[in-house]
Amino acid sequence: MTYSRVTEKDVAALTDIVTAERVIYPATVHYDHDQFKQVRSLPDVAVQPQTNEEVAAILRYANEHLIPVTVRGNATGLMGANVPIEHGIDIDMIKMNKVLDYDPDDLTLTVQNGFRIRDINEFLADKPFTYIPAPAMKWATIGGNASTNAGGMRAVKYGTTREHIRGITAVMVDGTIQHFGSKTVKNSSGYDLKDVIIGSEGTLAVITELILRLIPRPTINLDVLVPFVDVKKAISVVPKILRAGLVPTGLEFFSRETVEYWESYAHQPFMDHTGGGYLLITFDGHDGTVVQRDLDRAMQIARDNGALAPVLMGDEAHRVAVWETRNQLLTAIQQTTTAIDEVDIVVPISQIPKVLDKVAELQAKEKVSMPNFGHAGDGNLHIYMRKDDYSDEEFAAKVDRIIRQLYATAKALGGEMSGEHGIGFAREPYFEAYYGKDKVRILQLVKDAFDPNHILNPHKIFPSVGANKQENRPLTLD
Amino acid sequence: MTYSRVTEKDVAALTDIVTAERVIYPATVHYDHDQFKQVRSLPDVAVQPQTNEEVAAILRYANEHLIPVTVRGNATGLMGANVPIEHGIDIDMIKMNKVLDYDPDDLTLTVQNGFRIRDINEFLADKPFTYIPAPAMKWATIGGNASTNAGGMRAVKYGTTREHIRGITAVMVDGTIQHFGSKTVKNSSGYDLKDVIIGSEGTLAVITELILRLIPRPTINLDVLVPFVDVKKAISVVPKILRAGLVPTGLEFFSRETVEYWESYAHQPFMDHTGGGYLLITFDGHDGTVVQRDLDRAMQIARDNGALAPVLMGDEAHRVAVWETRNQLLTAIQQTTTAIDEVDIVVPISQIPKVLDKVAELQAKEKVSMPNFGHAGDGNLHIYMRKDDYSDEEFAAKVDRIIRQLYATAKALGGEMSGEHGIGFAREPYFEAYYGKDKVRILQLVKDAFDPNHILNPHKIFPSVGANKQENRPLTLD
Repeated sequence: MTYSRVTEKDVAALTDIVTAERVIYPATVHYDHDQFKQVRSLPDVAVQPQTNEEVAAILRYANEHLIPVTVRGNATGLMGANVPIEHGIDIDMIKMNKVLDYDPDDLTLTVQNGFRIRDINEFLADKPFTYIPAPAMKWATIGGNASTNAGGMRAVKYGTTREHIRGITAVMVDGTIQHFGSKTVKNSSGYDLKDVIIGSEGTLAVITELILRLIPRPTINLDVLVPFVDVKKAISVVPKILRAGLVPTGLEFFSRETVEYWESYAHQPFMDHTGGGYLLITFDGHDGTVVQRDLDRAMQIARDNGALAPVLMGDEAHRVAVWETRNQLLTAIQQTTTAIDEVDIVVPISQIPKVLDKVAELQAKEKVSMPNFGHAGDGNLHIYMRKDDYSDEEFAAKVDRIIRQLYATAKALGGEMSGEHGIGFAREPYFEAYYGKDKVRILQLVKDAFDPNHILNPHKIFPSVGANKQENRPLTLD
Repeated sequence: MTYSRVTEKDVAALTDIVTAERVIYPATVHYDHDQFKQVRSLPDVAVQPQTNEEVAAILRYANEHLIPVTVRGNATGLMGANVPIEHGIDIDMIKMNKVLDYDPDDLTLTVQNGFRIRDINEFLADKPFTYIPAPAMKWATIGGNASTNAGGMRAVKYGTTREHIRGITAVMVDGTIQHFGSKTVKNSSGYDLKDVIIGSEGTLAVITELILRLIPRPTINLDVLVPFVDVKKAISVVPKILRAGLVPTGLEFFSRETVEYWESYAHQPFMDHTGGGYLLITFDGHDGTVVQRDLDRAMQIARDNGALAPVLMGDEAHRVAVWETRNQLLTAIQQTTTAIDEVDIVVPISQIPKVLDKVAELQAKEKVSMPNFGHAGDGNLHIYMRKDDYSDEEFAAKVDRIIRQLYATAKALGGEMSGEHGIGFAREPYFEAYYGKDKVRILQLVKDAFDPNHILNPHKIFPSVGANKQENRPLTLD
């Protein structure tokens, strides 16, 4: 596929569509990276549409002129999905940030895709309903969340972003504006294209509006931080809690090593120093007695299985503090070294200890610091690799070896490559080796159905037909 | 598309795949209909595979020889989705009925697609976990449920079938066996093809195995039957209950007229005769006090809004009786007349009263008895049309006019054609008029990606490219 670069004539056409103050030409370095900054590539031009019709006009133009298009929410992704590898047009969604409809009768909130998670939380703060998914990055846009089906910290009880989006408006590459799903709870009317566009990382269509599902805000939220001698011991308790019939809102884990990086970053001591690994257990509901009883039962199971003295979040200040720490773990790991990379595998809950064994083995073998934390209750681990004093080449080689080993482990355990961060550009080279040629072929055909000219976010998720942008694509993981 | 008919040579090849005792040739009338019997067409041959590999061999053969393939669960559908319009091979899934894995650590149950809802309930009866979706037809197979994304009577709180299926194994039309999703809770690894195959009514791939999500079985289930002067009054209470922050498991409604058909069918009086319309309100949970308090609050809201004296389900016998009645409503309507047809629209919850106004108007205008019931808590109505003494031609003309009017109403209210029964063959002629040419085109391209020769369940959901099997396809609804 030979793509066109953006010319002065194209810029004039785009200016006609969105007006001059919403065209950034030439594009600034603001547009060449995501949060990891491991992949960098500049778009030729960035545009900031405000309406479906503007997005439609941009896509129609780009498709006719074979100009690649990459969509940008707030660039909080980690796998390079928003990086415009083939340059072209960057559609910056930050000005599509309006609430379109709040409907407490049908329990929905309809917003444009550039509305951020923190904006949603603020909008709903004085209302009796809430939007449940809780990714750590509160400044991420809802459109970006939808593009990777963000999971967050309440998935154990409530599921992922997909299950909280009732409908989307999406602009097809030919400029037609389509609605998939609606305010309705049920739907059995043709193919579920809402859910295939959600999670497609901007490669099938451009999501512009989302109908979010609201639920009555839980009035009781209780958390407890439970230290264990090590993280493996902490995690071994998780299936026991779930098997007992308890349904926690979240079951987060993090290692002592991870906490120490946070202490260096935050210049303050963490609230507990007894543990080598921690579980942060959360229950929510509408009845204080019931929520407390469930939490007590979970704590009893933890104590029966080696927990050290738990730290109860007795007041709101404690709760805020522990969640602030939790939400800053990634930033802390990143800010205390030269560069990082990450694996975001998800495995069946009972298999997490085997992944941690592999992490310990790889850490020793490759001599790379590998702090980790994640969602023990849904099997989703975030395993980091710190560059520290290694050269670029040394680190890249180590990362490649570690990634392959961890993917091979996840595959053998019946897991998936990514729980919530997506595949993007950074993990595209491993996708075919993980899922096989036959499955990639199906994805390629679905891609062709939506985007026959492959202008939408090229080189993401899986190899395009005939594409060879990424070198050294391995055929197997080990 | 010119399809091949099945020859003796094909039957010999199929016999080699599944052995002679699992080939029914020529196919019997058992295979020519669904529960409504409104659409009838015989397959040439029926085969009963037991393994993924047998399904794969059948599909590979059929695809190479351009023989159409239709999959049959237990034929409880209403829209003709399992009727083999182009004859060919019927894959009867009734012998793929094994439990493959029960995993209480990862909270999953893996079964073959011919396992029935009642089999699942029986298998889990002595276990602390349950599979939540509750369609009225307990002898439906789980594969059939997945094919239309069956909704059932607990969707208000728990969502539909799709949200309770973690992963599927599906055989592609070229005979490759693929897994989509897994035991994991989260997944952000390429396109969500699990959810596009679920609900595709056997037109994209053949689902053979399903990984079901289990949750701790609610120990407390409370129901109350609340009579109102009419069904519209009953339904107007529903948004008030939801807006109050309550989360009932289900909110079912049915009209007096529907109850009277049940009384004729069951030869016994219904448990209440005061109401012109009813709400059946259900709450479940793990704490008796909390569940009772929520139910009491809902009843108070109902009383404040015109409810007559509620009938409390004080013991298990009452509960069984009311749910038996509820589950038999469709059968009762069907067995007390010559033939029936149905519309299964779903609208935003707050819009149901407007649909009921339209039903009353059409009933008066067309002089057709239109009993109705459904899921008030999720906006999904089942509106029936009874043939009674009309001729086939008179009834067909009336049904066509009523259907168009009801679809136009649903569309205007922001709803969907089907909440849970699907489009099948019977509603295919209306699909393009409802959703538009542009959307149909996208569905056609997705179909082509999975099934380039269109051998899987032809003439279902939307018009195939170049197909003209259904005459009189309207361009608009009114």
